[in-house]
Amino acid sequence: MLLGDLALTWSDELLHAAGLTPVQFDAVLPLLSEMRTEVMLGQYLDLQATGELTDDVEATLTVNRYKTAKYTIERPLHVGAAIAGAGPEAMEAFTAYALPLGEAFQLRDDLLGVYGDPESTGKSQLDDLRAGKNTTLIALALRGSDSAQAARLRSLIGNPLLDERDAATIQEIFAATTARDAVEQMIDDRRAQALRALDDAPFTADAVNALKQIARMATVRNS
Amino acid sequence: MLLGDLALTWSDELLHAAGLTPVQFDAVLPLLSEMRTEVMLGQYLDLQATGELTDDVEATLTVNRYKTAKYTIERPLHVGAAIAGAGPEAMEAFTAYALPLGEAFQLRDDLLGVYGDPESTGKSQLDDLRAGKNTTLIALALRGSDSAQAARLRSLIGNPLLDERDAATIQEIFAATTARDAVEQMIDDRRAQALRALDDAPFTADAVNALKQIARMATVRNS
Repeated sequence: MLLGDLALTWSDELLHAAGLTPVQFDAVLPLLSEMRTEVMLGQYLDLQATGELTDDVEATLTVNRYKTAKYTIERPLHVGAAIAGAGPEAMEAFTAYALPLGEAFQLRDDLLGVYGDPESTGKSQLDDLRAGKNTTLIALALRGSDSAQAARLRSLIGNPLLDERDAATIQEIFAATTARDAVEQMIDDRRAQALRALDDAPFTADAVNALKQIARMATVRNS
Repeated sequence: MLLGDLALTWSDELLHAAGLTPVQFDAVLPLLSEMRTEVMLGQYLDLQATGELTDDVEATLTVNRYKTAKYTIERPLHVGAAIAGAGPEAMEAFTAYALPLGEAFQLRDDLLGVYGDPESTGKSQLDDLRAGKNTTLIALALRGSDSAQAARLRSLIGNPLLDERDAATIQEIFAATTARDAVEQMIDDRRAQALRALDDAPFTADAVNALKQIARMATVRNS
């Protein structure tokens, strides 16, 4: 906890030493404060939901938006844009691109946790299931389950002793309830929405190409 | 933990909205970062020492300096002085006043925890002893104890079931080892040192009077 607070303070020191002009500094500071408040609210919502698996798909997407979409994609773009002197139109265009892309990125991460190649994700396919983190994938599976399937998911997910066979059972239920396909579709929809936002954005061709590349990298299948 | 992080972020927002000029802002930011780093180091040292009572008087004074003296007195003065455009001479004078006074303030607080009138301190005389926090008072008592007294202190302090009779036993050992008197003497010495620092300080008469009043309020006996 102290180390986290120390890192937060040091991140401020890096910003203060970055050689920004007063105008740039004034533009960036409120964004950073909002970003921090948002991620803490997302973390709080996430903690509140911990302990029992939820079939509330919308709730998982709200946590996703605050913990990931805004913090990982939208606000970093806003910070860079503010330093470059961007106006409100550009800021809104970044939001229109970043929020759906950020959600898609987290949805891809949820899928990689269950289906990803451990060689490239760097973690076992059992870790996320053992941790019992509420994800949109699980919420969709619970919503689509009959009572026997739901009971099975609730008894297996979050069990720290869960093994490969249990994981296979869970994957079967994810397939039978079409939860996995639904998440792939949500990723596709959100990436398409992010890319469409670039059509009307007041960005240079180089910037649009870079943002398209980010959209691809953030949502690529790896399983 | 999240609430603490949120409060930290909000304190930044207050600062950003305080209407400081860029010059004032640049002067204040490094001080706030140092202040935060210092208090976290103090907190870390304090945590490291938790779990067993120490007779290392110097170690308790180091924690005191970082957790209290700098954070509660020195740095707030520095922040105000920086906003007012103070030069290095004034900053050094504030340090010369603030560090001994801040140590004296914490030593007074340690005594109030054991001897203070609950009506005015707002807490029972048992709380600090039950919590088993390492203080300079306890370290001095342990250093001055014979082995029977030391064993008694170690068995009583930190026991959450400690009662009034145990507290009286502890107070007897604090008296017999002259630990209480020694702490009073340390407070007197440090307050005197703080006041002497004002003699050569480049402050107005009004400022010196205010600082003298703070020195009195921060160290007054209340038992």
